[in-house]
Amino acid sequence: MRIVETISEMQSLADVARSRGHRVGLVPTMGFLHEGHLSLVRLAKQKAGFIVVSIFVNPTQFGPGEDYQEYPRDFNRDCQLLEGLGIDVVFAPSASEMYPPGYLTYVEVEEITRKLCGISRPTHFRGVTTVVTKLFCAVKPHLAVFGQKDAQQVIVIKRMVRDLNFDIDIVVAPTVREPDGLAMSSRNLYLSEQERKDATVLYESLQRAKALIETGERDARRIIDLVEQMISHKKTARIDYVAVVDTERLEPMDRLSGEVLIALAVRFGRARLIDNVVVEV
Amino acid sequence: MRIVETISEMQSLADVARSRGHRVGLVPTMGFLHEGHLSLVRLAKQKAGFIVVSIFVNPTQFGPGEDYQEYPRDFNRDCQLLEGLGIDVVFAPSASEMYPPGYLTYVEVEEITRKLCGISRPTHFRGVTTVVTKLFCAVKPHLAVFGQKDAQQVIVIKRMVRDLNFDIDIVVAPTVREPDGLAMSSRNLYLSEQERKDATVLYESLQRAKALIETGERDARRIIDLVEQMISHKKTARIDYVAVVDTERLEPMDRLSGEVLIALAVRFGRARLIDNVVVEV
Repeated sequence: MRIVETISEMQSLADVARSRGHRVGLVPTMGFLHEGHLSLVRLAKQKAGFIVVSIFVNPTQFGPGEDYQEYPRDFNRDCQLLEGLGIDVVFAPSASEMYPPGYLTYVEVEEITRKLCGISRPTHFRGVTTVVTKLFCAVKPHLAVFGQKDAQQVIVIKRMVRDLNFDIDIVVAPTVREPDGLAMSSRNLYLSEQERKDATVLYESLQRAKALIETGERDARRIIDLVEQMISHKKTARIDYVAVVDTERLEPMDRLSGEVLIALAVRFGRARLIDNVVVEV
Repeated sequence: MRIVETISEMQSLADVARSRGHRVGLVPTMGFLHEGHLSLVRLAKQKAGFIVVSIFVNPTQFGPGEDYQEYPRDFNRDCQLLEGLGIDVVFAPSASEMYPPGYLTYVEVEEITRKLCGISRPTHFRGVTTVVTKLFCAVKPHLAVFGQKDAQQVIVIKRMVRDLNFDIDIVVAPTVREPDGLAMSSRNLYLSEQERKDATVLYESLQRAKALIETGERDARRIIDLVEQMISHKKTARIDYVAVVDTERLEPMDRLSGEVLIALAVRFGRARLIDNVVVEV
């Protein structure tokens, strides 16, 4: 397993892998790996012969006052975990390698990035699409794996890939959860004991919403009310949003039909957690 | 010579060319080819073994009220000219192939796109960087050739390529001129007989400015005044801008030093013409 810190070395390795006929698979991460990330890597290994995991805490996707500085990092532990999975390259550029002085270019997906998480994080997705474009150009993958936990991110990236004509398959891996249902996230680290207990309500409420739809409920407002009421019962929870939208344009639905995304963001102390479920109606 | 209209077919051909060890060279054009374009193609042929010329009048780089509809087009003549040069592929997608319904993604270079031509054409370069990114992803070139006539475009594209980490060499070809010095442009077609005569002042004034610098002038204001005065003497000319800037950030200079770009845009009737000269001080 090779650790690569420069874009040019990464590109050379990608060229060699491609010229040898390997499919190149990329798993972009911000490090501090948990079982969720590792599941993405395992999925990538099923689909590609040369696996690159990028570890880069991307400053441009954090807004002012967000947790860029304190975002957890443990590069040595990450490398040990990845070594165990038998990947080929850890691509870990510095912030100045990715954004050198004089940097001016951004990739932006309109409309769908202004909704859901985009309301409270207005520059977040611009940072995501920009860094993912840069990672695509650096790693030259045939496919890239993202987690369904970040549902809006997946929809935005798929849109960007289609729009800009990247010849890259976007593979989506299911959300990995703790035994009590909490979606795995590096930010769970921020939770106090009480907040950690309360945070299980996110998945519980999504499961209840899904069950309600499965018993015939088609009124989006009732679904949102149910989820919001369950979450509000937890003293440490502060709802950012609960939304019921389509999975293409993220438009709110009144009556449920087709593929329905129920997505939420809730703050517990300094942690802002997201989760979602997709239901076929 | 193959004519390709879909992005997916273009990508397949590029993959095959690359797998056979060819260097892929791209010459992006809006068609209605003149000797300037052909010089770009000849330069590409010197540097790459598999040559793609794209012909696409890109709607997103025209502002409201600009000449997208009447921009001259002659696809059959373009193909005849290219056939004579022995290129491999004409990539000529439709507008709906490039921007299908639901399209949302744009690439934007900040700051340097708000200057010079960006002042009167505020969305122009966003359209250029977006379509060039799409062409890069469709054609997967090792190198792409642009003309120095569009000096700001070259600077913006180079910035974008560096920032987004495209592994593509940007090759710049010198401006090709009519015998009387007028830079070749598809938009010269718009000129009346009188306007065509008057338009020679653009190159004449740039040459005089260059000569003035070569005799020791270092005051940018004097250079601009000289050029503006010469152009103002022509009755059909309406100056958009005359600028003396550095070639990296396009910042105005007071005292000339280093690599100096003297750039101008002038309207003659409905034609808006640009030209420039670079002087090493």
